[in-house]
Amino acid sequence: MSITKNEIKLIKSLVRKKFRHQEQLFVVEGIKGIREFLDSDYILYQLFSTEAIFDAETILISPKELQMISGLKSPNTAVAIFKIPSAKIETTKPLILALDDVRDPGNLGTIIRLCDWFGIEHLVCSLETVDCYNPKVVQATMGSLTRVQVDYTDLENYLKESTQDIYGTFMDGSNIYSEPLPKAGVIVMGNEANGISSKIESLVTKKIGIPRFGNIKATESLNVATATAIVLSAFKGS
Amino acid sequence: MSITKNEIKLIKSLVRKKFRHQEQLFVVEGIKGIREFLDSDYILYQLFSTEAIFDAETILISPKELQMISGLKSPNTAVAIFKIPSAKIETTKPLILALDDVRDPGNLGTIIRLCDWFGIEHLVCSLETVDCYNPKVVQATMGSLTRVQVDYTDLENYLKESTQDIYGTFMDGSNIYSEPLPKAGVIVMGNEANGISSKIESLVTKKIGIPRFGNIKATESLNVATATAIVLSAFKGS
Repeated sequence: MSITKNEIKLIKSLVRKKFRHQEQLFVVEGIKGIREFLDSDYILYQLFSTEAIFDAETILISPKELQMISGLKSPNTAVAIFKIPSAKIETTKPLILALDDVRDPGNLGTIIRLCDWFGIEHLVCSLETVDCYNPKVVQATMGSLTRVQVDYTDLENYLKESTQDIYGTFMDGSNIYSEPLPKAGVIVMGNEANGISSKIESLVTKKIGIPRFGNIKATESLNVATATAIVLSAFKGS
Repeated sequence: MSITKNEIKLIKSLVRKKFRHQEQLFVVEGIKGIREFLDSDYILYQLFSTEAIFDAETILISPKELQMISGLKSPNTAVAIFKIPSAKIETTKPLILALDDVRDPGNLGTIIRLCDWFGIEHLVCSLETVDCYNPKVVQATMGSLTRVQVDYTDLENYLKESTQDIYGTFMDGSNIYSEPLPKAGVIVMGNEANGISSKIESLVTKKIGIPRFGNIKATESLNVATATAIVLSAFKGS
């Protein structure tokens, strides 16, 4: 058994969002990552590996074939295709994180890992937020994507319909270290360059901020993934 | 006036740590970054720019020459060479962050920005920690390197001689959200893959940990830059 030309073509096409969503499939690489997805509710479509080490139907391939289908410089044993689960927006989780146009795959990956760590089970993304099935995001989440529900929706409509308090981080927001932070609500984090957009800002009911302790010339902003770490830590640890 | 072959050779050589330390020079790119270094105690060695927009002696170059000397895909107007300041280890700052072999330039850049934000004026790095004058680190710090003193030293000896409490982050450390955290001390963060090494662990006087709030299968670790954000936030915000 070996890989076919059509299979190679399919895997390579899944680097692009358009084809991922057309086929409703995405790629996971490496033994540890693939095992986490196999152990989860995700449904396997095809698994290609140079070794028969998985508890799942495996198409054995040569190291050369692995190199052809991998998006990594140093491929790690296997490449799998999983099905994208159908979206299921829900608003009943106590604490929800929402992203207003986060564009960097590494940032989204880190944020999904943070949700997993802090027990935030639901991440709501604006339609302009980078796709969570982007291979760089999948790689950066290190399996956390299997435990965090990520939905894409019109964020403005979603927040308009929410009955919970909506928290947003702003330079002039109230100090997260002194402000009482609840166990329920929606926390909005903004775009890397522009922060929270004005249409979303108008829906925020509580403006919060991370105070700066450095001197007056200190950096004016934190990276969005770093800021998310601090904000989630303040909500969960308080 | 234009750029010479030797100048081009020098700038390109500074991508490598060996040549940076031989010449005691490093590269800063882009208008904003260069302005921050010009405004700081750092001493300019040479400034190449396609526009005469700096308050400093400028060698005007063509966009083509800029492309040749820039390490960025999209160069931004100017490339400057600054002198590496002489190391000055000191232990009198109240709160000091120490890194035990952090290897990723992006992580070190983020950590330097975090020090700047949280007013940590002194960062002590083990000799195996990535060089802070690595172009990727300089780029990632967004100017924060001008406000944080970064020293490289034998971390084991440094900690042995320290009279302050030494905090280290471990999976089984005491909860940072309930542990009283002081305004002075040394906080050690470990390597991306291996955490804090055993020789450094034996010098840690207080083991602290970031509790996981996710389910039992949740991710087992946080990225070191993310963990640093949470730990510094806990120390400064408490």
